[in-house]
Amino acid sequence: MTAPALDRLLAAPARLNRSDAIRAILAAAADPGVISLAGGVPAPDSFPLDAVTAAAAGVLREHGAAALQYSPTEGVLAARAALAGLASQTGAPAGVDRILVTSGSQQGLDLLARTYLDRGDTVALDDPSYLGAVQAFRRAEARLLPVPADGGGMDTAALAARLAAGARPKLVYVIPHFHNPSGALLGAARRAHLAELADRYGFLLVEDDPYADLGFDGVRLPSADLHSDRVVRLLSLSKTLCPGLRVAALVAAAPVVSALAATKQSADLHTNTFGQYVVARLLAEPGFLAGHVASLRAFYRARATRFGAMLRDRLRWLEFDPPRGGLFFWCSIADPEVRSDQLAPAALAAGVAVVPGGPFFVAGDGSRHLRLSYATVPDAAQHTGVGRLDAAYRAVAAAVTRHRTGK
Amino acid sequence: MTAPALDRLLAAPARLNRSDAIRAILAAAADPGVISLAGGVPAPDSFPLDAVTAAAAGVLREHGAAALQYSPTEGVLAARAALAGLASQTGAPAGVDRILVTSGSQQGLDLLARTYLDRGDTVALDDPSYLGAVQAFRRAEARLLPVPADGGGMDTAALAARLAAGARPKLVYVIPHFHNPSGALLGAARRAHLAELADRYGFLLVEDDPYADLGFDGVRLPSADLHSDRVVRLLSLSKTLCPGLRVAALVAAAPVVSALAATKQSADLHTNTFGQYVVARLLAEPGFLAGHVASLRAFYRARATRFGAMLRDRLRWLEFDPPRGGLFFWCSIADPEVRSDQLAPAALAAGVAVVPGGPFFVAGDGSRHLRLSYATVPDAAQHTGVGRLDAAYRAVAAAVTRHRTGK
Repeated sequence: MTAPALDRLLAAPARLNRSDAIRAILAAAADPGVISLAGGVPAPDSFPLDAVTAAAAGVLREHGAAALQYSPTEGVLAARAALAGLASQTGAPAGVDRILVTSGSQQGLDLLARTYLDRGDTVALDDPSYLGAVQAFRRAEARLLPVPADGGGMDTAALAARLAAGARPKLVYVIPHFHNPSGALLGAARRAHLAELADRYGFLLVEDDPYADLGFDGVRLPSADLHSDRVVRLLSLSKTLCPGLRVAALVAAAPVVSALAATKQSADLHTNTFGQYVVARLLAEPGFLAGHVASLRAFYRARATRFGAMLRDRLRWLEFDPPRGGLFFWCSIADPEVRSDQLAPAALAAGVAVVPGGPFFVAGDGSRHLRLSYATVPDAAQHTGVGRLDAAYRAVAAAVTRHRTGK
Repeated sequence: MTAPALDRLLAAPARLNRSDAIRAILAAAADPGVISLAGGVPAPDSFPLDAVTAAAAGVLREHGAAALQYSPTEGVLAARAALAGLASQTGAPAGVDRILVTSGSQQGLDLLARTYLDRGDTVALDDPSYLGAVQAFRRAEARLLPVPADGGGMDTAALAARLAAGARPKLVYVIPHFHNPSGALLGAARRAHLAELADRYGFLLVEDDPYADLGFDGVRLPSADLHSDRVVRLLSLSKTLCPGLRVAALVAAAPVVSALAATKQSADLHTNTFGQYVVARLLAEPGFLAGHVASLRAFYRARATRFGAMLRDRLRWLEFDPPRGGLFFWCSIADPEVRSDQLAPAALAAGVAVVPGGPFFVAGDGSRHLRLSYATVPDAAQHTGVGRLDAAYRAVAAAVTRHRTGK
């Protein structure tokens, strides 16, 4: 980006809405000349391609046309059973009646919003939070109640204070493991506290948990549904297996599953049958998932370690706590005068896509934050991308100085 | 069903809502002891299992992990291109920007309702009509404007009269080929008339067209989108290939596709990637689809012909016009005193599931109608099922007589 173009940008920053801002960055990041540290997608080289290939063939051989037929709205029984087993390992014991198979966890969020939120209802969530959730809640015309968070996740004492002061959210939304974007790990005591608050105040606690298997040191805490029946878990397989099958589990009390299934029936009848059978077969293979998750953790841990070292080594202007899991580095710019919503477009012009912090916040200020995904880009390209980001930073910092001094 | 139980039923007919009534019948029909003439599902022995098996393997070999990754909300480019080609054969020439890949046509209906309907908006539709559509429109709290229909589909003169009298629907919903449940084929002149009305009054004309390939004599009329840009086509592949992949195309003007894609992004991010690649590969295979559709037509024609002969031969109390395509026989009971909502539960108790006409109507009276699906049940079981239906009819007719004469 030329200095004059950059000056124009600083004088009149684009006022896109949050999701548009990120959509624009992701669209630009699809340019093959751009190195993307922006996406929230898992590394395709981590997908169990051979296992999926074998499972797909096995499913068609074993189930034949039944794998291609309409199937129940709640999910194919074999998939519900396999997902109930998975849920039971990390939370309350679940039977199939606690499982709704959804077309990805995003659909779980959307079904919750459509089923439980009327216009003006309140949803409490950490600030910052996941944009896809914010989008689903906004579409239901909910009021968002941002709750402060730290490295241990949502500050449940702050939530309790708001509840005591009269706030009555219908839903409280958290990302328990390796939060997107912040990387936070919601602690065990806070989980129990949230469950207690859910029972006392009658809200549903929504645990959106796509990164739970990606703890670099294997840490994984049990779901709050051990403590309360008012917990809804969204068990994505997008990071654990792969996203493209669009098969996820929503785990909740049976009446919640029934209510959401009625909404889903009108939304898309059911989740794709073939993908459900493939997932059921993969999960039924003894030892497969545990082995795959162990290799995933090693894969992401190694890549994150190298990326962190590169950032520390080359971008001295960037501050961050190394993540303990998940796909992201949540960073801030040390110089308070250089804003991430200025840096991000300059970086894109320099050939590297990064996401500024602002869009993730409901109330807080993300102007110093940047979210960097280390997950999908091979090391050599990361090296180039980091160099481009550094060059963009230097140009923006120089422009800020020019702007401030009026030169 | 015993005579006393039947008498109670006649005295106090169940007042279920429309979709609940059918859901209850379909749930009961899953009992292996019940022969189901109730379902609206295609025959699994008509699915191209070998072709799908080869395509699934080919997709994973050729595209590898990309077939299992997140993909664009609008659809995988190869799938959009293939579906655009398909749409162009039977309507206006379509580029990829006119295609939104949806998780089945039901999702297309839901996205239309969520994007274009506010509470109290009007949707005009034939009476009777498809329950899944009625359900999606009702969920959006739309007002339904039933329009009379006959064997040539929606009576467009009647619609024009309502429009002239001030009705202003946002959407007009039709099932152009082999209507569910009525079997009607919307004529060419009426299609053109609807397009003209769409342009004059500014509504979107929604053509929900899952049965278009199932004309027994190969008849297929072009879409009204040849005449107007305000036409939205829902091109299901559920009856043409198979339902379990949940891959359908919504075909519309590019701005409509963009608006619906924004809704879809928040609903489920995108349609399953793997299924889209499989469909793209199948459609790209020279001659495959045309050959498969030809064999489908022959398959359904033969089965429908045998079923129609069986009904005429054995159920003299039943009246119907033989369908020209699609999956259903839309019948009426000759004796006006025997109601289909009494016959259906009696039939279920006798071990055969059929759907009474009432739930399909918004305004009209379906109490004499029955919908019978001939598509999935093998001939021998059809024979048994028809026998059970006949026995149930005789029991109900006798009970009606007892009830009337007060004995």
